[in-house]
Amino acid sequence: MTVPSTASLDTTNARAAYFLSDSTGITAETLGNALLSNFPGFVFHRHTIPFVDTVKGANDVVRQIARDADAGLEPIIFTTTKNAAVSAALRTAPGTIIDLLGGHLTELEAALGTTASEQLGQFHMLGDATQYFARMRAVEYAIEHDDGQSSRALDIADLIIVAPSRCGKTPTTMYLALQYGLLIANYPLTDDDFPTDGLPPLIAPYAARCFGITTTPLRLSQVRHERRPDSTYASLAQCTLELRRAEDLYRRNRVPFLNSSTKSVEEMSAVILQTLRLRP
Amino acid sequence: MTVPSTASLDTTNARAAYFLSDSTGITAETLGNALLSNFPGFVFHRHTIPFVDTVKGANDVVRQIARDADAGLEPIIFTTTKNAAVSAALRTAPGTIIDLLGGHLTELEAALGTTASEQLGQFHMLGDATQYFARMRAVEYAIEHDDGQSSRALDIADLIIVAPSRCGKTPTTMYLALQYGLLIANYPLTDDDFPTDGLPPLIAPYAARCFGITTTPLRLSQVRHERRPDSTYASLAQCTLELRRAEDLYRRNRVPFLNSSTKSVEEMSAVILQTLRLRP
Repeated sequence: MTVPSTASLDTTNARAAYFLSDSTGITAETLGNALLSNFPGFVFHRHTIPFVDTVKGANDVVRQIARDADAGLEPIIFTTTKNAAVSAALRTAPGTIIDLLGGHLTELEAALGTTASEQLGQFHMLGDATQYFARMRAVEYAIEHDDGQSSRALDIADLIIVAPSRCGKTPTTMYLALQYGLLIANYPLTDDDFPTDGLPPLIAPYAARCFGITTTPLRLSQVRHERRPDSTYASLAQCTLELRRAEDLYRRNRVPFLNSSTKSVEEMSAVILQTLRLRP
Repeated sequence: MTVPSTASLDTTNARAAYFLSDSTGITAETLGNALLSNFPGFVFHRHTIPFVDTVKGANDVVRQIARDADAGLEPIIFTTTKNAAVSAALRTAPGTIIDLLGGHLTELEAALGTTASEQLGQFHMLGDATQYFARMRAVEYAIEHDDGQSSRALDIADLIIVAPSRCGKTPTTMYLALQYGLLIANYPLTDDDFPTDGLPPLIAPYAARCFGITTTPLRLSQVRHERRPDSTYASLAQCTLELRRAEDLYRRNRVPFLNSSTKSVEEMSAVILQTLRLRP
């Protein structure tokens, strides 16, 4: 996002943005930031406050918001709190309240012809024990199999991410392991893997579960310079060569692949899930 | 409505739930599921479809939704798509459309006295290069420092998570590294660390950045039995002892700590961020 340099100096475009939740605040923060990203002319002073689940807690937050309002920051308040008394307390805050759930819950009640359960007031996204164990196991599997370190139990991998060093295998692997509990190995393509027509022997039996990553030579060179400045490893020539070889390898073996240079970890993950039909 | 005679499922409480997005679908899925969790009496057949960013793509999805509608599954469609033509195509789907962003965008436009940027139609949550590098570095730091494996650069850790083996240090560490780009080490308390009054020498200099995890002896014993069935390590007596010693250590050294037994990774992370004031 590009913020015009004049905007950051202009206090009339500064706003306080609050993300309030009776749980972790992750939903309020994610959706609130997605909405705010459409207004690049403003500078938002952001505050995430999780676990606002009592009237006293809400009143404390309202006082904090009031201080920002007094300072001329015209607060915008995103909230996912559900308790009626807490929500009522928050509505006394001097600012614009954007209730991210309440209205949609009413729409859902109409669609389903019933009222929302009172008991399930909290949004426990991934709180149950089975899912917790699955994620724990997936993260540990990912660490064990990071960077081709282990060939143990590779046959049970849901996915093997293949790429030259520093193309971004590891963050995408961890994201998918944590969010979806998938068992993911990643395998670094090195000079030893070329020239060859086939996939490296360790992963060749699992070609259908492989997904390749590529990037641009310039981006790869920049990332490698951070690790080993002015090395052959980081040179543009070496990066260009390795990426061309890797892409050839993917194509020859019909391994789907993606360029990571302009994509977030979330976008990479969504494409991989979609391509290999791994979405639970 | 026609229910096919071959249907073995009672569709009275069965519904199709679609999470549609012009980007990753993560926001639609997260918020949609949070909303649906309030209606435990229903069985939802869930479909996440990311990258619905053309009218043709939208029409394909509408046909899929129509098949569910014909089967009596009364579709509920959560969407975060923003393109007007795509949204118009989706609105022809036979079901209840819940637009998770549109209404809120209008509220924000009113609050800010301007219109949303047309150029920034996509929600690139964490797509920029600086944040990408920060997350990559954080995940690699977390892997290097998992389970007390390395004391290198421990002085730059934002946070050191301390706990006996199998209390859930690693998934929480990875979540915080990925979501917030924080540098996090984790340190396993073993019998070698007791009896002692102080923190283990490796982490003692960084006491102010330590956070402890505990759990219930029963839960710890269950998790350890998965790794080493019927071992002393997994016995209830050993687990009880280790947890009591760990909690004593936390208290004596004023290390804040949390019981992970009933908490999700997200909830743990939110409490840790809040307690150590690590939120960016």
